[in-house]
Amino acid sequence: MGNFDILRTARIVLHVTDLEKSKAFYDTLGFVLTEEDENALYYRGYEEHNHHSLVLKQSDKAAVEAIGFKVRSEQDLDELEALFRKQGAKVKWLDKGAQKAVGRALRVQDISGLPIEFYAEMDVVERLLQRYNLYRGSKVQRIDHFNCAVSDVQKAYDFYTKTLGFACSEYTVDELERNWACWLHRKPNVHDIAFMNNYGPRLHHIGFWLPDPLALIDTCDILAASGYASHIERGPGRHGLSNAFFLYLRDPDGHRIELYFGDYLTSDPDFEPIKWNLDDPMRQTFWGHAAPDSWFEETSAVLDIETGEIVDVKEPKLERKKPQFII
Amino acid sequence: MGNFDILRTARIVLHVTDLEKSKAFYDTLGFVLTEEDENALYYRGYEEHNHHSLVLKQSDKAAVEAIGFKVRSEQDLDELEALFRKQGAKVKWLDKGAQKAVGRALRVQDISGLPIEFYAEMDVVERLLQRYNLYRGSKVQRIDHFNCAVSDVQKAYDFYTKTLGFACSEYTVDELERNWACWLHRKPNVHDIAFMNNYGPRLHHIGFWLPDPLALIDTCDILAASGYASHIERGPGRHGLSNAFFLYLRDPDGHRIELYFGDYLTSDPDFEPIKWNLDDPMRQTFWGHAAPDSWFEETSAVLDIETGEIVDVKEPKLERKKPQFII
Amino acid sequence: MGNFDILRTARIVLHVTDLEKSKAFYDTLGFVLTEEDENALYYRGYEEHNHHSLVLKQSDKAAVEAIGFKVRSEQDLDELEALFRKQGAKVKWLDKGAQKAVGRALRVQDISGLPIEFYAEMDVVERLLQRYNLYRGSKVQRIDHFNCAVSDVQKAYDFYTKTLGFACSEYTVDELERNWACWLHRKPNVHDIAFMNNYGPRLHHIGFWLPDPLALIDTCDILAASGYASHIERGPGRHGLSNAFFLYLRDPDGHRIELYFGDYLTSDPDFEPIKWNLDDPMRQTFWGHAAPDSWFEETSAVLDIETGEIVDVKEPKLERKKPQFII
Amino acid sequence: MGNFDILRTARIVLHVTDLEKSKAFYDTLGFVLTEEDENALYYRGYEEHNHHSLVLKQSDKAAVEAIGFKVRSEQDLDELEALFRKQGAKVKWLDKGAQKAVGRALRVQDISGLPIEFYAEMDVVERLLQRYNLYRGSKVQRIDHFNCAVSDVQKAYDFYTKTLGFACSEYTVDELERNWACWLHRKPNVHDIAFMNNYGPRLHHIGFWLPDPLALIDTCDILAASGYASHIERGPGRHGLSNAFFLYLRDPDGHRIELYFGDYLTSDPDFEPIKWNLDDPMRQTFWGHAAPDSWFEETSAVLDIETGEIVDVKEPKLERKKPQFII
Repeated sequence: MGNFDILRTARIVLHVTDLEKSKAFYDTLGFVLTEEDENALYYRGYEEHNHHSLVLKQSDKAAVEAIGFKVRSEQDLDELEALFRKQGAKVKWLDKGAQKAVGRALRVQDISGLPIEFYAEMDVVERLLQRYNLYRGSKVQRIDHFNCAVSDVQKAYDFYTKTLGFACSEYTVDELERNWACWLHRKPNVHDIAFMNNYGPRLHHIGFWLPDPLALIDTCDILAASGYASHIERGPGRHGLSNAFFLYLRDPDGHRIELYFGDYLTSDPDFEPIKWNLDDPMRQTFWGHAAPDSWFEETSAVLDIETGEIVDVKEPKLERKKPQFII
Repeated sequence: MGNFDILRTARIVLHVTDLEKSKAFYDTLGFVLTEEDENALYYRGYEEHNHHSLVLKQSDKAAVEAIGFKVRSEQDLDELEALFRKQGAKVKWLDKGAQKAVGRALRVQDISGLPIEFYAEMDVVERLLQRYNLYRGSKVQRIDHFNCAVSDVQKAYDFYTKTLGFACSEYTVDELERNWACWLHRKPNVHDIAFMNNYGPRLHHIGFWLPDPLALIDTCDILAASGYASHIERGPGRHGLSNAFFLYLRDPDGHRIELYFGDYLTSDPDFEPIKWNLDDPMRQTFWGHAAPDSWFEETSAVLDIETGEIVDVKEPKLERKKPQFII
Repeated sequence: MGNFDILRTARIVLHVTDLEKSKAFYDTLGFVLTEEDENALYYRGYEEHNHHSLVLKQSDKAAVEAIGFKVRSEQDLDELEALFRKQGAKVKWLDKGAQKAVGRALRVQDISGLPIEFYAEMDVVERLLQRYNLYRGSKVQRIDHFNCAVSDVQKAYDFYTKTLGFACSEYTVDELERNWACWLHRKPNVHDIAFMNNYGPRLHHIGFWLPDPLALIDTCDILAASGYASHIERGPGRHGLSNAFFLYLRDPDGHRIELYFGDYLTSDPDFEPIKWNLDDPMRQTFWGHAAPDSWFEETSAVLDIETGEIVDVKEPKLERKKPQFII
Repeated sequence: MGNFDILRTARIVLHVTDLEKSKAFYDTLGFVLTEEDENALYYRGYEEHNHHSLVLKQSDKAAVEAIGFKVRSEQDLDELEALFRKQGAKVKWLDKGAQKAVGRALRVQDISGLPIEFYAEMDVVERLLQRYNLYRGSKVQRIDHFNCAVSDVQKAYDFYTKTLGFACSEYTVDELERNWACWLHRKPNVHDIAFMNNYGPRLHHIGFWLPDPLALIDTCDILAASGYASHIERGPGRHGLSNAFFLYLRDPDGHRIELYFGDYLTSDPDFEPIKWNLDDPMRQTFWGHAAPDSWFEETSAVLDIETGEIVDVKEPKLERKKPQFII
């Protein structure tokens, strides 16, 4: 492992096909709009002191441009560049100023083909954590994690744990004990990124942290009252895997948002990753509710960091299974 | 209308086929066991000062023996007897002492064939409302309402509103504006009893009041951790009709329990009953979730007050529809 | 008792000295502004289908103009007029149209000198119960009760229970078993009006119902973030008496608002009123917190229904005690 | 800074004078009793996979024996030993097996005189996070932090940040901009340890993490119903500093427990420590409630790691101030 420190899940850059529709949706959810221009919206949660964690860019097709992690220092970026170049990955720099509010950024197409971004610097803005009079909607606190579909989970697992320094909190194996899905973290909660066996590379969802369980119930009421009931895809429910109280939403382009509350501390080296078997009923929604087919089948396309074109997906290496065990 | 005062939904007498299995289930839900003997369990909620609101009797078949309302006075019972006799209904008295903790009780087979019971007196026991150290499970506060399947909703509606003095809070009509389901109350919240168009007479569910929305979430976690995940049938969710936050459970015999929180005050004569159309999406679960088929198709048999045999059901008068709009 | 039916606590008419300051405060609390003009603001809760439950009128002195109850019918008003005239009370009619949105209203100076109002009719407006996207602040659902300071609690108790048909849910006695405070209801929860021993007639507070306990916590956060921390007078806490979760606020004129959640059903004639002794520690805040002196000593003046002048107070008949036991 | 990695706040060893009384109290709070013997009780939270985070030892005087941090590896302990020896601190080893369930432990008297313990290994037991049917009381999830009174905050701050590698999240300065109190963390939330200006070395409180805000409200109800109302010292309330929802309790020996929910992520190097001035009203309880005098004046004595005697306290270097701003 190289000499760098990836801090945490930091931001996502999504392409959307109708910025006004997206804005109406994310505003209803109470995301804080830090800044906007003709082509993009920059949102953050109430707890976040950085400029944004969610970028929506106007485009002709819905897709994921970048999955961003924050690193400790500028040198970490150089270390990471060397590492990815050595691996033969596509690598690209974006200078400071090339992206709104973001410092120098390193983009790579990772081992699964995902468009990953690293940066150390983002503009600091006012943190609204105690501006309770401004809270609306879901009271989104901060970005928490990414969940990605990849064709070879074991390969992704190996690279992220052995080379990038992620630790595994929980994982799922099939009947042959093969790695079917895994939850990996840098900050000490359940995950910064998860990989699951499916057509990939694709993005399954982005997780945002809520302040309490009732904020999640309130979200359902507010969405329904706003005409967005059909955007509630799954939940509210309790995940067996991660223990979080969850709600899955689909934005106007079908990008999937998870509102997520209450996992646990994973700081300890003597904490053994929790293994779940695909056919263990406790692995599913802890309460036994099935996930809808869409939750299993629909994911967001990701873009090539060089061409900007949608990356072709590969067949999953292991057999695909019904959706319930993926969180 | 006669000179009597039906106060509220008061108790249900259920027949169950395995008292030990039932006890394990209702204990997990945190119902307070006031008393038990070889043949029966007597449960109440933490707020209730009367001996019980739920009786489970050992039997060879699962069924509903009596759907009980409390009236203001003993004279009210005589008034009600006269009324039902005049109507030609089956009527039966149970003397004080014939039933555990209950005073003189009048049982009738109502206009839909449901086994209804009226009584004015029940033993008073310690109310545990502020004994928070004893709270467990769902923290059930009190019985709230009955929901019954009947073959002719309009007929039941007419009798309960015009003759028994119930008021209507909300109702559902089909495309021909026919009364498809109705929610009727004596105490001023949404209902003491609801009727819906289906094979009847049958009991759809019994509603119990919870102290707050999180008690409902906790219930799911506790049931799942206790091996009862498969007993969660529907929810948690928000009802469009009634606005309550709900969870539906099935007990070991399939009797359906609704945990229910937060409807509204219905004291005012100028409050117009809320009309819902069968095809209005807001009528369903407010958040747009569909109810499972079982919720629509499965109900509890009711007993003849004289023979103790299961009452035959009749075809519903109106077309049956998918379950989502029934609460 | 006469032949009339007082339904419930319905509205309060308060005089305030700076309408703009009051508006800023009540808007922060999320009250729904139905209508306003140069001289008055008309607010309601999200559940209420009547035009308002809180009127704020611009005046040169802060005071209570009317404490309003809704009755079932217009005839009830005539019955009540006869009753109060027979008793020798000051009585005054306000024609329909004399007050915004209110039908014919009867005002009386009650046995304690309080300016009580009765009416059967108020304009119906849109109920916002399921307009969750509009919810703000405390998510106030509806008006719940009045708490009044009177010089002779026993006299008020006798009149309201024997003549006006209120039932007692809980009461406090001093060491000589004298009625020191009492909670009386028409709708079946803990109270529509409470009387406590103090300089009177004065208004202690108006209670509003919240939808859940977290709305009360959120209120504290929102008020503090809005610069209103000093307006939080007491709580949050649990009342021993009534069992409600409570928060007391002072508006810009010092009028006291209680945000109140979760008492219990009081429909049953066999429910014995709960007696509390002044020196019973469970009578205080259930958790043992003391109330501040202001809570005991400060109340709102009430107006003479004829002259509009502030009614002089009398010494309380029993010894005044520290505030903790009053809710 | 040395080459070691302190992971987190891990356990406290308290001396209590009546083990049975302590057991009754902590059982009511729902702490999980992992093991007990004649002389000690070993408790953990529902989330914890290590044997315990709270040890209560029978003694003739109430005191703090050890304030424990978990480190990443055994080598870290040797590095820390060298560091403290170089500093001239009292240092002592406890072999693996000398303490129940704990590996080799290094104890030191730190720069403020506090008895600090480091260890890398503790027995792993069943984590009860999803055993919701076992949850009771406060549903304590895990230990979170220590708050200590020291006579020289700046000195403690310098040592913990510069030598031990802690980061500062928030701090309080007096009118001369001197460090009056500081909150320092290794795991990325607000603190693992806080220091405040007072007679020291003493322990102010131990913080435990709760799963949601209602668990804190429930705690008050359960304690009061169990006869422990007088053990509630302060709260519930919102801290300005840390933003947590809090409740302070005193155990039967006066040791102070904070139940704590909901601070924020502090992983980022570009997060500027938040400075509070002593006279800033937002620094106090966010809602403006004052803390009781006991909260400011009463703390737990700490023991000398060699003699086992109570360590003498020194005068605080800065002026002591009223308690509200300390959390």
